[in-house]
Amino acid sequence: MMDKWLINGLADEVITADDRGLSYGDGLFETIAVRDGACRFWSEHMARLRSGCQRLGLPAPVPEQLERDAHELIGAAERGTLKMIVTAGRGPRGYRRPQPVASTRLVGFSVESAPGPREKARVRLCATPWGSNRVLAGMKTLNRLEQVLARAEWDSAGIAEGVMLGAHGRIVSGTMSNLFIVVEGQLLTPRLDACGVHGIMRAKVFDVAGRLGLACREEDLPGSLLKQADDMFLTNALWGAWPVERLDEYLFAGSEVTARIMDGLLQLGVTECRC
Amino acid sequence: MMDKWLINGLADEVITADDRGLSYGDGLFETIAVRDGACRFWSEHMARLRSGCQRLGLPAPVPEQLERDAHELIGAAERGTLKMIVTAGRGPRGYRRPQPVASTRLVGFSVESAPGPREKARVRLCATPWGSNRVLAGMKTLNRLEQVLARAEWDSAGIAEGVMLGAHGRIVSGTMSNLFIVVEGQLLTPRLDACGVHGIMRAKVFDVAGRLGLACREEDLPGSLLKQADDMFLTNALWGAWPVERLDEYLFAGSEVTARIMDGLLQLGVTECRC
Repeated sequence: MMDKWLINGLADEVITADDRGLSYGDGLFETIAVRDGACRFWSEHMARLRSGCQRLGLPAPVPEQLERDAHELIGAAERGTLKMIVTAGRGPRGYRRPQPVASTRLVGFSVESAPGPREKARVRLCATPWGSNRVLAGMKTLNRLEQVLARAEWDSAGIAEGVMLGAHGRIVSGTMSNLFIVVEGQLLTPRLDACGVHGIMRAKVFDVAGRLGLACREEDLPGSLLKQADDMFLTNALWGAWPVERLDEYLFAGSEVTARIMDGLLQLGVTECRC
Repeated sequence: MMDKWLINGLADEVITADDRGLSYGDGLFETIAVRDGACRFWSEHMARLRSGCQRLGLPAPVPEQLERDAHELIGAAERGTLKMIVTAGRGPRGYRRPQPVASTRLVGFSVESAPGPREKARVRLCATPWGSNRVLAGMKTLNRLEQVLARAEWDSAGIAEGVMLGAHGRIVSGTMSNLFIVVEGQLLTPRLDACGVHGIMRAKVFDVAGRLGLACREEDLPGSLLKQADDMFLTNALWGAWPVERLDEYLFAGSEVTARIMDGLLQLGVTECRC
C-alpha cells in the first residue's frame, strides 16, 4: 500500500463506492519516480495525463494542484514512488457520465530505499494477450485487467517481467514496461497504435537514440522476432532501461546498442542505468 | 448514486484508495432487478459472478453473504436495483495480486418506482469499437471504459442505447444491453467469444426461444446486417427485452418473433415485457 494519500488535496485514504474509477475504471493513472527529493520527468508525466484526460473527455487536471499534493507528500523524503489517479468522479449507476464531471484526484506516495545493483532481468512470454482498441491504445487507464491476468501467470520471484503479445501474435510490451529489441544492430520497439501504453521512459529512449544517431524504429513486430533478437531491454518510469538476460530458455547475446542507450539515459539522470 | 451500500457486510460507503478494484478494475459486478421485493434471477446472477471469479482467479464469493447483504438492503422495498461489486481487495502497487486475495464485497441498492409504459427504443450506431480479448470476453468486469466512451458519444434523452461493433466491423451489443435481430424470420444474436457480456436476460431469451421452438442462432454478424434486419430488440436485467423502433434513420418493420419472445419473458415474470 502507499504510505499516505491525498484525496482531492486532503489527507485521506478512501473514496466513495460510487466513484466511476471503481465502477468502470473511468480514469487514468501515473507512476512517477521520486529521486533526490524530486519527481523525475514531471512535465512529461503531466503532459501524458493531460493528453489522456483529453482523449477520455475528462476535465484537464490542474498541474499546480498535483504539484502541491506531490510536494506535501514527499516532504523531506529523498526517494520513493508517487502514484496519481484521476477519475471521472462520483456518479449514478450507468455508463453515462454526469455533466459536468467533477473528477476525483488521488495522489499517493511511498518512501523506498535505493535497491542494490541489479542483475540482468529474466523474463517470460505470457499467454494472456493484449486486446486491441485504438480508442484506448497508448493511455495508462484504470482498465488494467489484461496486465493483471498476465502478471498472475507466474509466481517465481526470479522472473522480473512477462512479455505480452497482441492481435496477430505481434509483440506489445511487458506487463508493466515497454520493450525494445536489437536485431542486427537495429533498435526496434512495437508500434502502440492498437494497444499498449506510451511509457515516459520509452519516449526518453527515442530522445537518447536520436541524440546518439541511432535510428529507433517503431514497427509491427511479430512475436517470432523475440527469440531471434540479439538483445532486449525493458523500460518504465522506475526501472529506467533494464537489460534482459533471457526470455524463457532463450539467452540474448547482448548488444552495444543497449549499453549506449543506458549510458544516454544515465546522462539524463536515470541513475538506475548505472549497471 | 445508490441509496445505500454495504461494504464487506457493513453499512459504509467508502473503499480504500489502494483497492485493486480502483487501481486496475480488478473485479466484477452484477446489476440485479429487484421486483416484488425479490432479486429476479438471483441464482443466474450468482452463477455468472462465480464463473467470472473463477476465470479471473479470484476467490469465489459466498452466496449466503451476498444474500444476507441483499436482504438487509432491500428491507421492505418492492422495487429497485441492486448492484454487487467483487474486487481483488487491497494490495500494494503493482499488477501482482497479494496471496491470498482478500476480496472486497460491495452491495448497493436504490429504490426505484415502476416507470410508465415505454415506447419502442430509438438507438444509434456508435463509433467507439469494442476491443477483442478472449480472456475477458463475456464477463461483466470493472474494465468498462469502452462502454463509457461509446455512451459519451450522444447526449440526447431520446436515444435509449448505442450499438457497438467489434473487430472486423462485427456486431457486438449495445453499450449496456445485448442485442437480437430478426432477419427473414430467423432470430440472431452476436457470438460473444471475443468480446461483449453474457447477459442474464440474453440467456433467458435463449430459454424462451427454445421453449417456443424458435431457433436462436449465435453467429458472427456483420454490421451491415443491422440495417437489413426486420426487427431488433435489446435485453438487459432491468429492461427485459425492449423492441427497437429505429437505428439512426433506419426503421425496423417489426416481427412477430419479437412479440413471441417478449410474451415468453413475461411468462417468466419479466413484467417489463408487457407492452
